[in-house]
Amino acid sequence: MLGNFVYCNPTKLYFGKKALNSLAGELENYGKNVLLVYGGGSIKKNGIYDDVLSVLEKCGKTVREVSGVMPNPTYAKLLEGAKAAREFNADLILAVGGGSVCDYSKGVSVAAYCEDDVWEKYYERFEEPDCKIIPVGCVLTMVGTGSEMNGGSVITNTEKKMKVGHVFGESVFPRFAILDPEYTFTLPKYQMISGIFDIMSHIMEQYFSGTDDNTSDYVMEGLMRSLIHSSRIAVVDPLNYEARSNIMWTATWALNTLVAMGKDTDWEVHMLGQAISAHTDATHGMTLAAVSLPYYKLIMPYGLEKFKRFAVNVWNVDPNGKTYEKIALEGLSEMKKWMKELGLVLNAKELGLKPEMLEAVADSTLVMQGGYKVLTRAEIIKILEESMKYE
Amino acid sequence: MLGNFVYCNPTKLYFGKKALNSLAGELENYGKNVLLVYGGGSIKKNGIYDDVLSVLEKCGKTVREVSGVMPNPTYAKLLEGAKAAREFNADLILAVGGGSVCDYSKGVSVAAYCEDDVWEKYYERFEEPDCKIIPVGCVLTMVGTGSEMNGGSVITNTEKKMKVGHVFGESVFPRFAILDPEYTFTLPKYQMISGIFDIMSHIMEQYFSGTDDNTSDYVMEGLMRSLIHSSRIAVVDPLNYEARSNIMWTATWALNTLVAMGKDTDWEVHMLGQAISAHTDATHGMTLAAVSLPYYKLIMPYGLEKFKRFAVNVWNVDPNGKTYEKIALEGLSEMKKWMKELGLVLNAKELGLKPEMLEAVADSTLVMQGGYKVLTRAEIIKILEESMKYE
Repeated sequence: MLGNFVYCNPTKLYFGKKALNSLAGELENYGKNVLLVYGGGSIKKNGIYDDVLSVLEKCGKTVREVSGVMPNPTYAKLLEGAKAAREFNADLILAVGGGSVCDYSKGVSVAAYCEDDVWEKYYERFEEPDCKIIPVGCVLTMVGTGSEMNGGSVITNTEKKMKVGHVFGESVFPRFAILDPEYTFTLPKYQMISGIFDIMSHIMEQYFSGTDDNTSDYVMEGLMRSLIHSSRIAVVDPLNYEARSNIMWTATWALNTLVAMGKDTDWEVHMLGQAISAHTDATHGMTLAAVSLPYYKLIMPYGLEKFKRFAVNVWNVDPNGKTYEKIALEGLSEMKKWMKELGLVLNAKELGLKPEMLEAVADSTLVMQGGYKVLTRAEIIKILEESMKYE
Repeated sequence: MLGNFVYCNPTKLYFGKKALNSLAGELENYGKNVLLVYGGGSIKKNGIYDDVLSVLEKCGKTVREVSGVMPNPTYAKLLEGAKAAREFNADLILAVGGGSVCDYSKGVSVAAYCEDDVWEKYYERFEEPDCKIIPVGCVLTMVGTGSEMNGGSVITNTEKKMKVGHVFGESVFPRFAILDPEYTFTLPKYQMISGIFDIMSHIMEQYFSGTDDNTSDYVMEGLMRSLIHSSRIAVVDPLNYEARSNIMWTATWALNTLVAMGKDTDWEVHMLGQAISAHTDATHGMTLAAVSLPYYKLIMPYGLEKFKRFAVNVWNVDPNGKTYEKIALEGLSEMKKWMKELGLVLNAKELGLKPEMLEAVADSTLVMQGGYKVLTRAEIIKILEESMKYE
């Protein structure tokens, strides 16, 4: 059943080759002070930093930088950025990077003038901001999270060993995002495929939930087919513009809130993956890859019809003369083949997960209610153990 | 190839049962004067008029009405509405109806303060407004056009025998739209299936263009599969909420500009259909149905690969051991079966088209450049003649 919903996504996207040419026009909408946020400095090597700074200078902006945003941005770093934004009186936060930098920038935008405890308010009680929000714009250099067109902000609290995402309402969405697929060309393969699986996981988390027959289910099948198709090209030919641009565009669709409208969603794979990241600092998409097969095998009997549909409509499994279970298993088997073809990490040991960490990771794993099976603690441990056996 | 694009769609949607409950909150964003626009009075019979008026009164709004907006809104009626809006100093135009009423209201919103010749500026030169635009909100009672979430405004100039659509930029998009699937329950079957084919046609017009392998092509296959599935339920069980709500939501996706991003589009079927409407005043979706099969058969050889893909991915045609042509033809044949199952008009004679009108209809048909074949005048005539032979 398509439930009631409110949909609004005001983010303006500039997509394509040389999309940065649109930045100057956008900057006219904001005041003089631009807080430039980026990560570990790869944008200085590939020239994107210089390009962006040159536009900011030509537009007469005063720039202050917050750099060193880590792949799993920490709460301490968030507070540092919030202080900088407030003291600088930033009119715009310009995030240049991937999902981590965008997520972080949105966190800073609502933390700068927050008078409550930021962690508790946003990342424990999941409240909406009631303070001034600094507008955020994004120049995307990495693909996967969809953070460029949603209110998501995932932050890691290292003290509490918690990696938590808040999905804010549209007032926190980036005002604009610049998506040039060529900006992703220099990304190492590990990051590229990790992003690709992140996209796949976003779609699956929204697909494997409910007994619905919603438009979104059909659309998500299309998105997965497109992603599988393009990723197979990109992994052997990373400079293929058509493949990389479609992957970039699929990533945005996968998590711009649209496909979730009116339906239940799961997000347990993200909870498991985030718990692993909180303890190992492993790359986000790889943690999702490492838990997905054991997780989906475990919940398959509870949503068999959808898994059968997934096998047929996404993986072209021939259903003739087979039981639903056999069809469903063949679908997951095709998915495993694709994952190995891309070179994804299937075994959590490769991400630094050790047997003695399992109890603590289970402690950090939030248990969601929207999927086909509400996990017990024993099942969480079993999924992690299964992942550590994968070859 | 995914071309460069700018995407922005700020319309806020309230979707689901009793969605009208959200109207009062939205009205707070606008001034006192609300121009209430509706069609032939069916909303007075089904109670929607009373419901809306009661909200407007509770919110203390001053209401002026423009009623009698026809299924193919005329330019003369547009000027009447523009004058009313200007004289009333309307703060908001509230469209209550289907695509015609929404299209008309958007036209009024940009015509009210336009100092140029409205027809020439917007419907011949396709310019963007440079005058004050009155905000538009929609309460949708009929499904198909997607007008609730785009800048489209189709207006008929009866003097010039032209039915022309301008797709305005986001400043003209409705600010909000209220979509209650139950509001479509009382619609006569003829209107329902006409709207369903309008949706199908919107998707096909964007699908059958280019040699691309874009994400949008995959997504559109999902949208078509969903629509075919739900329409088969709705035509025998019009009160099926799941089917009707998914049809409503598919309609919005089909034409909220998203699936067209970065790809060529056609729209020749709409040009043919609109030309027939301009001469017969026939229902929009039915005119599209009547020309689609002859049109697609004619252009099929020029886009054979896409027609083969359409047959396999949308209509589940088994491709084994068949030529591309055979597969493609079987796809169109499945589509014809579905159209007959719904009860759509396949023969333009049923819409009032007469042999002696063909030359004039051809004169009114705009020839588009984005499809697989740029039509000659002889081909336009042939399509119309073929339609008049269908059974």
